[in-house]
Amino acid sequence: MTAPGPLEPRPGAPAHQAGHSNLDPHLDRYASRTAGMTASEIRALFAVASRPEVVSLAGGMPNLAALPLDSLSTQVAELVAEDGLVALQYGSAHGVPVLREQICEVMALEGISAHPDDIVVTVGSQMGLDMVTRLFCDPGDVVIAEGPSYVGALGSFAAYQAQVVHVAMDDDGLVPATLDEAIIRVKSEGRRVKFLYTIPNFHNPAGVTLAVRRRAEILEICARHGVLVVEDNPYGLLGFDGQTYPALRSTDPDNVVYLGSFSKTFASGLRVGWVLAPHAVREKLVLAAESATLCPPTFNQLVVSRYLATHDWKGQIKKFRENYRERRDAILGALEQHLPPGCSWTRPDGGFYVWVTVPEGIDTKAMLPRAVTARVAYASGTGFYADGLGSRQMRLSYCYPTPERIREGVRRLAGVLESEMDLVRTFGSVHPRAVSGPQFPSPDTA
Amino acid sequence: MTAPGPLEPRPGAPAHQAGHSNLDPHLDRYASRTAGMTASEIRALFAVASRPEVVSLAGGMPNLAALPLDSLSTQVAELVAEDGLVALQYGSAHGVPVLREQICEVMALEGISAHPDDIVVTVGSQMGLDMVTRLFCDPGDVVIAEGPSYVGALGSFAAYQAQVVHVAMDDDGLVPATLDEAIIRVKSEGRRVKFLYTIPNFHNPAGVTLAVRRRAEILEICARHGVLVVEDNPYGLLGFDGQTYPALRSTDPDNVVYLGSFSKTFASGLRVGWVLAPHAVREKLVLAAESATLCPPTFNQLVVSRYLATHDWKGQIKKFRENYRERRDAILGALEQHLPPGCSWTRPDGGFYVWVTVPEGIDTKAMLPRAVTARVAYASGTGFYADGLGSRQMRLSYCYPTPERIREGVRRLAGVLESEMDLVRTFGSVHPRAVSGPQFPSPDTA
Repeated sequence: MTAPGPLEPRPGAPAHQAGHSNLDPHLDRYASRTAGMTASEIRALFAVASRPEVVSLAGGMPNLAALPLDSLSTQVAELVAEDGLVALQYGSAHGVPVLREQICEVMALEGISAHPDDIVVTVGSQMGLDMVTRLFCDPGDVVIAEGPSYVGALGSFAAYQAQVVHVAMDDDGLVPATLDEAIIRVKSEGRRVKFLYTIPNFHNPAGVTLAVRRRAEILEICARHGVLVVEDNPYGLLGFDGQTYPALRSTDPDNVVYLGSFSKTFASGLRVGWVLAPHAVREKLVLAAESATLCPPTFNQLVVSRYLATHDWKGQIKKFRENYRERRDAILGALEQHLPPGCSWTRPDGGFYVWVTVPEGIDTKAMLPRAVTARVAYASGTGFYADGLGSRQMRLSYCYPTPERIREGVRRLAGVLESEMDLVRTFGSVHPRAVSGPQFPSPDTA
Repeated sequence: MTAPGPLEPRPGAPAHQAGHSNLDPHLDRYASRTAGMTASEIRALFAVASRPEVVSLAGGMPNLAALPLDSLSTQVAELVAEDGLVALQYGSAHGVPVLREQICEVMALEGISAHPDDIVVTVGSQMGLDMVTRLFCDPGDVVIAEGPSYVGALGSFAAYQAQVVHVAMDDDGLVPATLDEAIIRVKSEGRRVKFLYTIPNFHNPAGVTLAVRRRAEILEICARHGVLVVEDNPYGLLGFDGQTYPALRSTDPDNVVYLGSFSKTFASGLRVGWVLAPHAVREKLVLAAESATLCPPTFNQLVVSRYLATHDWKGQIKKFRENYRERRDAILGALEQHLPPGCSWTRPDGGFYVWVTVPEGIDTKAMLPRAVTARVAYASGTGFYADGLGSRQMRLSYCYPTPERIREGVRRLAGVLESEMDLVRTFGSVHPRAVSGPQFPSPDTA
């Protein structure tokens, strides 16, 4: 049997108020950090959205179909047979040394020169994010992040009671002047800015890339204000033309903590990511990671290491890129063809996501149930902001469905938008402003 | 190449003061929780202790030699070939449903009746510990724990700035009256007790088991005071005569959060553990886990699931038990034969550890470098206390070395103790009291 879905609340714990029911006998016991810990309101919809008749443009699951399962199968078998007593044993919290060396080769593709010692292997880069926040954020500390930003990052920041201040993006990514202004403003309010959290390449959810000419400027602003930079780069090698951009870390090793991941370039279900940090920070990271998981799974690290050592992993990434490019083309074409006037969207040249803005009067969160009824799902924009914005935006993921399904999904979405716009034209705005705020991440929205 | 060991400090970050050097430019940026985050002082010694000529009785690594690597190799190969696109993909933070059902069967061996919905799969039970502490502990909240207690638990408590109050154990485990007194005392000081953290079976590091007759009493005390019980049970199926004890959770499902693990009954390097929690708590745990790692590795969960479905896993645990019993016999025999008068130790009937108390005047932490010089290593007792006790204790792990090596190790240890006692008899106590306190866990001391 499977667990009841979130659409089937059980007595004492309605799905949308996890643990906040009066019937929870532990209610008085929770730490204050749990106050912001509420289930995403769209989670219930995902149970419906995962039905095969629904085209889901909501999830961020990588498309693994291109993986060479046969040779991977042989390799994991060899790993267990030849090196099982190591692979199945505890390792260090720092991570397997040979993998850390290989990670340096991966990062070199984006201009990073690093020492394997300064890498800490994590259980996906989500754990890296969580550890960095654990290290730096006291309750009330400010993290500056692009608006919108990755929902999983907002979840980690909320878990440590950090406050998020968003700064604007345009088609060239984070706008440096708004960053400078935000830091000055926050400091003038007597609040401490701990770090800038940024996704420079093929942004989740915005689909834009930070222009190269802005990178030095952003580093300079952060250095001038004494603000650390946390660079999250899961998609950097997924530029559709094979292009890469110099990582922020490549020119500022002392003030950038870099987060990397094999989830989008190899296999998300292995949960292998890493943090590259300035040396002193790295030592604390290892200690934090020990208290969090003791060590990352040795087995998974050795699977990744063998894969990197024996496969044409760059060729594999090229296959992934081509797969995603085909889907990006499909979605941009379909948006152009079907979406009603007044909608706009970003044009990603890598990664998984398009960020769509709909006309005034439409609330994407309130519209979502109708979209699911029309057999298409998306992630409404509010989940990607900590400050209540995003109700006119949605994230469309083109990474997983086939191009044909993507086109069908956009066609359905366009129909739903047309109906909404009819209503708006007739009655004005038809929805109360939805309650919004940071929502905890879910693999559905990763 | 491998990373330089912790005995080779690099400029700017001495191994024993991770990040606390004046040369760390990030010094003013860390969260206050990092203040207690210092590397274990014995860590440096482990680099020496891991040399082949040293008998390490320090580590808690399970002995995996009995694992059927050939059939495991076949199974992981089949998993990737047949179900690779699922195994290598993101899953839910809750965990794979089929594994959660199988975990219920495992827990039934200790009298637990549970619903798979109420299980959350974690990256080892260390992550379970960390998540439970995240959910319940604000800075300054009190956790009650046996003295001594698991070093990894003390690390998690410190990471959330919880304060640990130890309660006494004897040969029958936690002494109920001291628990009652401790709760009353802490409450009278105006502090909040959030939970009792207890390892009822084959305690790490104490090697004792909570008498069955005490279990109801402890549950009653905690219920009466409104204190949650966190039951950590990684060793419960490793009783040397095949005996099991009723889990605390088996009789009090509403007030016990139960932590389980496959690290000692199958393979530690997969990092698969779980939390069984009251329903409302479970919902919050899933949210906390999402913010920590997004989801546990799907691959590892399916490996464990296949193993449970197709192997005689109970027979395998019996093999592990017999292996550990042989080693327990070896160490108890050697202690009896070699240790000088004035030493005492516990007599475990399951698990991995013997807890040794040495004569007055000897400081086990100060003695450790001499022991390592004499080619034997142990874990000094101070790491297992949050309050400075333990300097006359040490933990000896018999799980990993061969019986012959264990006997040789104890012989060497006895020699070191004899020399120390000679010094004490001649000069009185020869060591200043070592600085002690909670130390972050390490797989070496898990």
